[in-house]
Amino acid sequence: MLSSLFPALAVRIVLSAVTSFVLALIIGPRVIDALKERQIGQTIREEGVQEHRKKAGIPTMGGVIFLAPAVLATLLFAGLNLYVCLGLVLCLGMAGLGMMDDLTKVIKARSLGLTPRQKLAGQIVCGLVAAVGLRYFPGVPSELPLPAAQGGGTLLLANSFIQVPRWGFLDLGILYLPFITFVVVAFTNAVNLNDGLDGLAAGSVAISLVPFAIIAVVTGQAVLSRAAGVAYIPGAGELAAMGAALFGGCLGFLWYNAHPAQVFMGDTGSMGLGGAVAALAVCTRTELLAVVIGGLFVVEALSVVMQVSYFKWTKGQRIFRMSPIHHHFELCGWAEEKVVTRFWIVGAALALAGLGLFAGRLLLG
Amino acid sequence: MLSSLFPALAVRIVLSAVTSFVLALIIGPRVIDALKERQIGQTIREEGVQEHRKKAGIPTMGGVIFLAPAVLATLLFAGLNLYVCLGLVLCLGMAGLGMMDDLTKVIKARSLGLTPRQKLAGQIVCGLVAAVGLRYFPGVPSELPLPAAQGGGTLLLANSFIQVPRWGFLDLGILYLPFITFVVVAFTNAVNLNDGLDGLAAGSVAISLVPFAIIAVVTGQAVLSRAAGVAYIPGAGELAAMGAALFGGCLGFLWYNAHPAQVFMGDTGSMGLGGAVAALAVCTRTELLAVVIGGLFVVEALSVVMQVSYFKWTKGQRIFRMSPIHHHFELCGWAEEKVVTRFWIVGAALALAGLGLFAGRLLLG
Repeated sequence: MLSSLFPALAVRIVLSAVTSFVLALIIGPRVIDALKERQIGQTIREEGVQEHRKKAGIPTMGGVIFLAPAVLATLLFAGLNLYVCLGLVLCLGMAGLGMMDDLTKVIKARSLGLTPRQKLAGQIVCGLVAAVGLRYFPGVPSELPLPAAQGGGTLLLANSFIQVPRWGFLDLGILYLPFITFVVVAFTNAVNLNDGLDGLAAGSVAISLVPFAIIAVVTGQAVLSRAAGVAYIPGAGELAAMGAALFGGCLGFLWYNAHPAQVFMGDTGSMGLGGAVAALAVCTRTELLAVVIGGLFVVEALSVVMQVSYFKWTKGQRIFRMSPIHHHFELCGWAEEKVVTRFWIVGAALALAGLGLFAGRLLLG
Repeated sequence: MLSSLFPALAVRIVLSAVTSFVLALIIGPRVIDALKERQIGQTIREEGVQEHRKKAGIPTMGGVIFLAPAVLATLLFAGLNLYVCLGLVLCLGMAGLGMMDDLTKVIKARSLGLTPRQKLAGQIVCGLVAAVGLRYFPGVPSELPLPAAQGGGTLLLANSFIQVPRWGFLDLGILYLPFITFVVVAFTNAVNLNDGLDGLAAGSVAISLVPFAIIAVVTGQAVLSRAAGVAYIPGAGELAAMGAALFGGCLGFLWYNAHPAQVFMGDTGSMGLGGAVAALAVCTRTELLAVVIGGLFVVEALSVVMQVSYFKWTKGQRIFRMSPIHHHFELCGWAEEKVVTRFWIVGAALALAGLGLFAGRLLLG
């Protein structure tokens, strides 16, 4: 089993990442030039960090630099099962919504654009597609080992269960649909908020894709998933090839996006990445673990929610100097590149902690 | 087998990394203050990059910020077998040599210091200890599966064999001793040369420790090593816990070392890291693969060798604007932080390529 499956998938994962990385490196300068020609440049918020004014005019919507290679590498190297298809739908659906947003900001006229309400509706539709696909799609048996504490056993086709670390499997029933939809919408917007400093989102997402790829491999492999005491989901391993494609693409994009940035990913990129990360989380049933692994994005989103709520509640007072929270640290005097590196470090620590919770379930649970 | 070994080791790996990371974060500011008090600051080469003059006085020898936590975490979470002991000996031996060098530079008088010849001699002694330990230490059986192409089979106690990707196992006989010594000395100096920009060495080593930790886990596990078609080396998995400790320590150190740096690791740090990475390579018999995984360090070292040779040969002409090669790119107009991020990206791509060669041996070989 191992010898027949593992090397083949391992090789495809690596090829997927390397292909996507090299393609992104190659198309990067052409895309940047094309965006510049069409004057698709960044608009800088009037009320934002002073230092960022000089970024006006740097091309945005650069997300295509990693999205196109990542999708191509996924089609080439991942088996196109339900999970990979859902992943592509979420990634491209969200990227499409983001692209409309980017174009609106550039063109200024709202003709092409969406109102915030319409955008949220679009995100909810994407989330529902994933939820319905996971719950009702036939022919995807999910063998869930019950936790050892309860005597062991196996549930089949239990597509309303989520995995709770140290606890086992929880049946959400019909609530599975709104739950998955919420996870997808929340994650997409959280990654979107994370995108605000040179290299921050590309690097942070690349880092959190590593544990998700490992989780997908373990979850999709009979022996390994049993050893780790997690759900065995045949076919989930293919998501690792998709995650690797995005990982490679993000690194290739980061080549040009590193401080001082020559291009930004725009909502096209950040919402596309958010959708993809959400797909990895919900397809491997690690929605709760994703709060740890993607803790950086959760904190960014929470900082905005807290700031806005507190501001409204106190009628004008602030918790942070500015939200999302990465701007707070900038205003505290950290250099932009130092904020970015430190956020990456926190992301890596959270990725490790998430893997520990994942692999250590049996031992700690 | 898997269920009893894998989760336990996986948990220890994560705990080791997290412990070391948190400790490094905590002791960082205290060590920096202590170094400042004793005026152990960086001396900047007269002929170096102009921009770097402002770095004079930033404390150096900060390697202790990750070395102390990493050693502690290794002692706590890794099983102390031959491999881990050799790893600690190489790491601390090289760090000791580096520390004498650092102190010499600060104190200026050469009383404490070593001549380049003495330093090399010290490195060779460290390398020989590793080589002799690996070749002659009794009670460490290494089961080496012959490549499938040759009909399969098993060699026992074959401690003069190295693994050649796509080829199988090569018996070096007594030449194993100078070979291993060369690998250790070369790697230590290569990592040492890599340390020249804010965050470069800490990040690059952290990145290359990830594939080495994965390789150590696979190599030390009977089922996984057979699946990947590599040597099964019982006990090698413990090196992953040591690699994780260094990984966490490097990230904690990078918190303070990220551009603009508040502290440098000095030769203490870079030679210690070099020795540790070399230990991971030689103990898992991936000396040749290490040329790919640590390709960044190899290129840095080669750039110096090429520059110096060419300069002597042509009596005064240069290939690069400055060596090691990271300074060349700086002088080409890349911002320091962009050089660093791009080197990290190349390091991640090389890490992936190395893992592909490792896992894909059976399929591609």
